[in-house]
Amino acid sequence: MQIAHPYLIFLGDVPDALAAKTGLGIVDWRRDWCIGQHRLPGCRADAKLPDVGIREAARLGAKTMVVGAVNAGGVLPAHWVGSIVEALDAGLDVASGLHMRLGDVEEIKAAADRNGRRLFDVRHTTERFATGKGTKRTGLRLLTVGTDCSVGKKYTALALEKEMRGRGYDADFRATGQTGVFISGRGVAIDAVVADFISGAVEWLSPDAAPNHWDLIEGQGSLFHPSFAGVSLGLLHGAQPDAFVVCHEPTRTAMRGVRHPLPSIREVIDLTVACGRLTNPAIRCVGFAVNTEALDDRAARSLVDEIATAHGLPATDPIRFGTAPLVDEIARIWPA
Amino acid sequence: MQIAHPYLIFLGDVPDALAAKTGLGIVDWRRDWCIGQHRLPGCRADAKLPDVGIREAARLGAKTMVVGAVNAGGVLPAHWVGSIVEALDAGLDVASGLHMRLGDVEEIKAAADRNGRRLFDVRHTTERFATGKGTKRTGLRLLTVGTDCSVGKKYTALALEKEMRGRGYDADFRATGQTGVFISGRGVAIDAVVADFISGAVEWLSPDAAPNHWDLIEGQGSLFHPSFAGVSLGLLHGAQPDAFVVCHEPTRTAMRGVRHPLPSIREVIDLTVACGRLTNPAIRCVGFAVNTEALDDRAARSLVDEIATAHGLPATDPIRFGTAPLVDEIARIWPA
Repeated sequence: MQIAHPYLIFLGDVPDALAAKTGLGIVDWRRDWCIGQHRLPGCRADAKLPDVGIREAARLGAKTMVVGAVNAGGVLPAHWVGSIVEALDAGLDVASGLHMRLGDVEEIKAAADRNGRRLFDVRHTTERFATGKGTKRTGLRLLTVGTDCSVGKKYTALALEKEMRGRGYDADFRATGQTGVFISGRGVAIDAVVADFISGAVEWLSPDAAPNHWDLIEGQGSLFHPSFAGVSLGLLHGAQPDAFVVCHEPTRTAMRGVRHPLPSIREVIDLTVACGRLTNPAIRCVGFAVNTEALDDRAARSLVDEIATAHGLPATDPIRFGTAPLVDEIARIWPA
Repeated sequence: MQIAHPYLIFLGDVPDALAAKTGLGIVDWRRDWCIGQHRLPGCRADAKLPDVGIREAARLGAKTMVVGAVNAGGVLPAHWVGSIVEALDAGLDVASGLHMRLGDVEEIKAAADRNGRRLFDVRHTTERFATGKGTKRTGLRLLTVGTDCSVGKKYTALALEKEMRGRGYDADFRATGQTGVFISGRGVAIDAVVADFISGAVEWLSPDAAPNHWDLIEGQGSLFHPSFAGVSLGLLHGAQPDAFVVCHEPTRTAMRGVRHPLPSIREVIDLTVACGRLTNPAIRCVGFAVNTEALDDRAARSLVDEIATAHGLPATDPIRFGTAPLVDEIARIWPA
């Protein structure tokens, strides 16, 4: 699967930035691949790209329109179909991270066929997986876990990759969600795998490696999220991480999409260790990635320090303060 | 989905009874629906049905050949295809609980088409699920959980249904696996649902009900099985059980299909409560179902009593001793 760039990022008319996290995530890590954004009236998300029409994007050289927004359940709203057909008619491929296959919509399938364009559904892998075995693999692995969905697990793994590679580590980001696949050009959307193969798919994604090689595996959901905890547990068992980082958004008052309160960081550490030791008895927490976007610098610094002190492990905001404290801890525990 | 009976149970050439548990389970609960079994040379499973040829079964009135055996991963062995084609040519429908769709095999698809016969893949639901919400639903629910796969979770739920209905309870078995679906004619094979929708599918399966109504939900896998724990956790959260029964096979030395040791019953209770209280804070263990098939009567009685004493809750072998002690405990905690 090779998705051609430059991309045109389609954001539809989603009500907030979280619903556009696929598009925003691509822009954060691959700004130079993005020609512009295309938004429908009422859209409340903004990727800070030039707003361009679809034909204009094609003239500017865009190769693929990426549907960079999702709604609950991953269904494609009927009123987005026209834009997708327009992109295909303008000569672009279309890529989507929705659960629903683009080609299952007759108008989209017809437009792709008549224009000879490709449809990419990154949530639908053609790979056949085996069931997980839980056997210890060689190499080192870090998993980002969360107190909730959408708290920065992908960002943290990508930022760790950048920092570790900068220090000479042999380290690879491993994508488990659609945005990560768009950013890294490989991976598996783990929440779309058939349930029996969750851990097996992660074992495939992160195979045996050299003893000092690090896989930095993107976490999904939360062990405490009533919608997605099954995915999170299968991912934890398949990843068999040596290290994990707890990602947290301190201003969240309920878990995303449901009425449940957030777990404490301590609860997340304890349950991750309790469950994770099934496939890696040496699993340990190496620190915290706190998404402080909603706070000012002083409050952010203070909160991060407070979390570090409370748990005796480094804490940072990967975006605001970088991931150096986490990599320092990794270097301390696993000297190169 | 209505699968027509009588059934012919196809057992292939599987190496042991566990691999034929679908077929054996159907016979245990629906003996009167089964005309006979069809086995290939080398088959080491026996459903204690008359061995019949496929054409003979058709003459005896069989309507559907059920593929009642599975191998790891649910793949259809190439050398079983001939028997399936023969059944279709003999005028039978064919039903399967394998992961692989029967219709994906060209010869099978062609045979079904030319004979106007139906193919049932009970692991592939056409139902569209929503993501789980974790909101408390009305009615009472019991989930059977396990120290491992294949330890009697379905049997226990079915035996509880029988005992509770006999005492006048309004109680329904809820099938979450292929055998259960064959036995009850409804349900969802939860391990075949897309990972994001595990808990949502269980919420669909066990909707709001009358305050004294019991759903007896078939568990799957184990929170301690490295292949399938994600399924087990999503099922636990979606089921939001008021009560759970821990099912256990005391002679098992490693978890099925992997090298991991079995957890203790205490560990299963503790992790089930720790995780289950996310969607039902009142979750509690009501006892133990011990599969004592490998023991003699005296050893079985002694083991069951020992487990009951150790945990201060009733224990039984549902097949050998019945489920009365478990239903007594339910009646004590939730008086009608």
